[in-house]
Order: sequence, then structure tokens, then C-alpha cells
Amino acid sequence: MKTLGYYNGKYGELDEMSIPMNDRVCWFGDGVYDAGPARNGKIFAIDEHIDRFFNSAGLLDIVMPVTKPELKQLLQEMVDKMDDTELFVYYQVTRGTGIRNHAYTEGAGNLWIMIIPQVIGDCKEPIKLITQPDTRFLHCNIKTLNLIPSCVASEKAKKAGCQETVFYRPGNRVTECAHSNVSILKDGKFITAPTDNLILPGIARAHLIQACKKLEIPVSETPYTLEELFDADEIIVSSSSKLCLRACEIDGKPVGGKDAERMEKLRAAVIEEFESATAAQ
Amino acid sequence: MKTLGYYNGKYGELDEMSIPMNDRVCWFGDGVYDAGPARNGKIFAIDEHIDRFFNSAGLLDIVMPVTKPELKQLLQEMVDKMDDTELFVYYQVTRGTGIRNHAYTEGAGNLWIMIIPQVIGDCKEPIKLITQPDTRFLHCNIKTLNLIPSCVASEKAKKAGCQETVFYRPGNRVTECAHSNVSILKDGKFITAPTDNLILPGIARAHLIQACKKLEIPVSETPYTLEELFDADEIIVSSSSKLCLRACEIDGKPVGGKDAERMEKLRAAVIEEFESATAAQ
Repeated sequence: MKTLGYYNGKYGELDEMSIPMNDRVCWFGDGVYDAGPARNGKIFAIDEHIDRFFNSAGLLDIVMPVTKPELKQLLQEMVDKMDDTELFVYYQVTRGTGIRNHAYTEGAGNLWIMIIPQVIGDCKEPIKLITQPDTRFLHCNIKTLNLIPSCVASEKAKKAGCQETVFYRPGNRVTECAHSNVSILKDGKFITAPTDNLILPGIARAHLIQACKKLEIPVSETPYTLEELFDADEIIVSSSSKLCLRACEIDGKPVGGKDAERMEKLRAAVIEEFESATAAQ
Repeated sequence: MKTLGYYNGKYGELDEMSIPMNDRVCWFGDGVYDAGPARNGKIFAIDEHIDRFFNSAGLLDIVMPVTKPELKQLLQEMVDKMDDTELFVYYQVTRGTGIRNHAYTEGAGNLWIMIIPQVIGDCKEPIKLITQPDTRFLHCNIKTLNLIPSCVASEKAKKAGCQETVFYRPGNRVTECAHSNVSILKDGKFITAPTDNLILPGIARAHLIQACKKLEIPVSETPYTLEELFDADEIIVSSSSKLCLRACEIDGKPVGGKDAERMEKLRAAVIEEFESATAAQ
């Protein structure tokens, strides 16, 4: 298959799939998701993603319709149906189906899968960022389908010829990007916002931290500001789709590029881990 | 028909309707809605609702696939298909259809309609409330489909045997409820939060203000606190589904009931307006 959509046991090419109008996603965006890359039939960091997926559901009292091993097996079966070897594997659970009512439907949620071709690449091309106030809700640790502010910010970046938008809260505290985490290198240290309710606990971010530890780069999980972002030696944007990108410009001003050797070591370590975990047999 | 679902020109009973998996509502909750009651084939305050609907869409740069007069006529045609005489008429526009990508799809949005039986009633039965911090985003003036926090709060109220949840921001500033506005009567005055980005500009709220002006009750659109809520003479919860409800309890404590005559005048005025606007020919 070129693309794959799955909904509660039915599957097909994505543009041929439909879902019930009464799925609560339609009225409330009431669901959570997770996603990550696959290559050569191997889904990268799948256990970490499934753990986070179940955690997001649990925080919203959404009842999972499958166990973790069942989901893992199902995702593998769906990946095995695909023509391409480099994929984006996405899955979500929505709370249920029923006549519109804010209070919850009973019983297990609806399981969705969506798979499309997508290439991680070598992440060598630097990206450009814009900044804007973080006006999102206070549940950014949960990977929900309430993503309008991230869509608005992504469109704004695109219109500016940039790839991502950095969000900041009052006090100019940098939180994360519209669909990535953002971290900095400064004076040889890796600094990244702590995993409170203002950011998603990114799995690429966790792998970056692991890589830092192997490379003996000290890690500080502490809030940092916009001023520190602009003044950083390097700026690193990470997500499950783009594991480790360097930013070269923010709001039209050149940034980073002042610790190129350490930056390159980090990038190489992260990409190396991905490539060896997903190497062909 | 008993219920009605409509999507881009197709319609049927709600539980038989389906929508494309690639509608952006499925991945991002990317859409806005509006809704209100109908009775005897007449949709109440329809021009105000349609104006707000188009305004919500405009604030998010969602391109409407119909004009205001076209939508009004379409809604009337759909109402005319219904068996029941008292209805909830709901409509939404989602940004478009396409492979998941935060940045926008091009072109006009998808138009949805959903109609179910629902009775306004006389709004005489008082309701019970709970309170909780307002952790929503800072775009509450836009009637979006990003409603998880409202769902969570509504479920919490239901579990507590209550009908609504009052949200408050830092400084104990009362904003609104999970799916209603909340206002108070104090010393003969009607006090309600101003229509900034923290509350929805409720149409029932606007009609309450109009009723106050007719009844010579002074209106103050100013922020008020949780302490003022508990200390109010009367507490009024208003929405397009329940035009004017009196609260008798908050977090288990008896509240209101200290300005019963003025409260009853307001309730009667609002219900009278609805009933005369929707009277049978």
C-alpha cells in the first residue's frame, strides 16, 4: 500500500477511509496520539512511543481498546503492508462514539492508525525559526488532538519561509516549538526545558539527552529564556520526524553556529542510533 | 428524520453518517462551530449565531464554503426535515481535507450540520456547580473544536452530581463555565466577565444583558472573583441550550437565592423572548 488508514479493525488507502460522524474527535478533538518513524520494516523506539501513548490516554481517562503488546503487533502488521521502506507511523485513540455531549461516553476508545511515506534523512540542513507567545492550554505534556494553536503557528512559520515556531510564555520562558522540542548548547552544556505541563516529553529529546551523556556533554533540564535562545552557541530542534535539526536563523536574525563540533557530534550520534536500530537485516 | 447529520452536501440520520479520515478535524480538531435552539421550525437568534460562526472561522483564517444567506437557508431546510418541534441546531466548519500536516490545506473548509431533539424548557430548576482552575488556551473567544478541557471539566461536574464547572484563572478571576457563561447579581447589579480572549461572547449572555437593560438592572462587564461568586445574591448560568439557569450550590455550599424577585424577572424575560420568537404560526 502507498498509504494506510486504520479504524477499529478496518483499513485501506488513507483517502478511501472514513470514520463515523459521531466519533468524539469530530465535536471535541477528544483523543490522544503518538507517532514516530519506521525504516526497513522496523519501527524506531516503539516501546517508548507506546508507553507515552498509553500515558497520554491514561491522563485523560481514555480507555485503551488494546494492550501494549497487541498495539505493537498491530502496528508491525500495518507497516509490513506498506510499499515504501521509510515511513511515518501514527496512531491515535479517540474517546468513543455517541451523540454530542461534553461528558464522556462509556467504554473503550476508538483505535486509529495512519501510515505514510516519510524520510528522516541526515538532518544536516539547518532550519529557520520564528517566535511567538505560547497561548496554548496547560496540558502540553499530553499529546492530544487539540492542536489548533500548533497549526496556526506552523502556518505562520511557513508563510515566513521558516520551518518551525518557538513558543515562549510570560517572562520570555521558552517552552517548545509548534511540533518539536527546542534545546540549546551554551558553554559546552545542553540546556532544555524541564518536562512539566508546558512541554511534551519528547522522545527525540530523551534520545538527545542520552547522546549527551555518552558524549559527556553536561545536561541541564531547566527553563531558559528567549534571550538565552538568541544568545545560544547552538539551537537544536528535535521531534520524532526530524530527530536533530540545527537552527541557523530566528526571526530573521542569524543564530547558533558557535559550537559546530559539539553540534555535529550530537547530530551524528542521534542519526547513527536511528540508522543502526533500523538497519536492513 | 429523528436526527440529522450533514457533511458537504450529503445528509442522513446521524449514526449513519461518516466523514473522510483526512478531514483535519481528525488530526487537529481544526475547526469552529456554532449552535442554538429551534422550536416550531424557527431557529432562534440565527443571524447572531451565524455572525459569530463566521467570525470564529475568520479569526482562524478558515475559508467558509457558503455565504451567510446560503447557510441560513440550508439550516432552515435541514430543520424542516426533522420530526420533532424542539431542536438543537449545530453547525461547524473544518479547515479542509488532506494528508496530515500542521500547515493549512488550501481552499474552502468542510461544512457540517448536526441536528437532534432538545428542549429548552422553562429553566426554573436550579443547578449545582463545581469550580476548577481554568487551564484552557488563550483563544476562548473563538468557538473551536479544541474542547478537551471542557469535556474533562464536564465529566468532573457530572461525577460530582452537578451540572456545570466554573473556571477561574490566577487571581481567582472567574472566566466562564465548561460550556456556558456565568454571571452574578449583586446589590441589584448584573456583573459578568468582559468579552476578552478568556470567554466566549455568549449569545444567551448578550440576550441576558438586553433583558437587564429592559428591566433597568445596571450591567457591569468587569472581571469578578471566586469570592464574589460565592458571595453573590444570585448566580446565573447561560448558554444557547439553557438560556438562563440559577445556581443554588457551588462546591457543595449553598449559594444565591438572595435576590429571587430580580432573578425571576430576568428568567421570565429571557424565556418569554425565546418563546415568542419561536411561537407556532
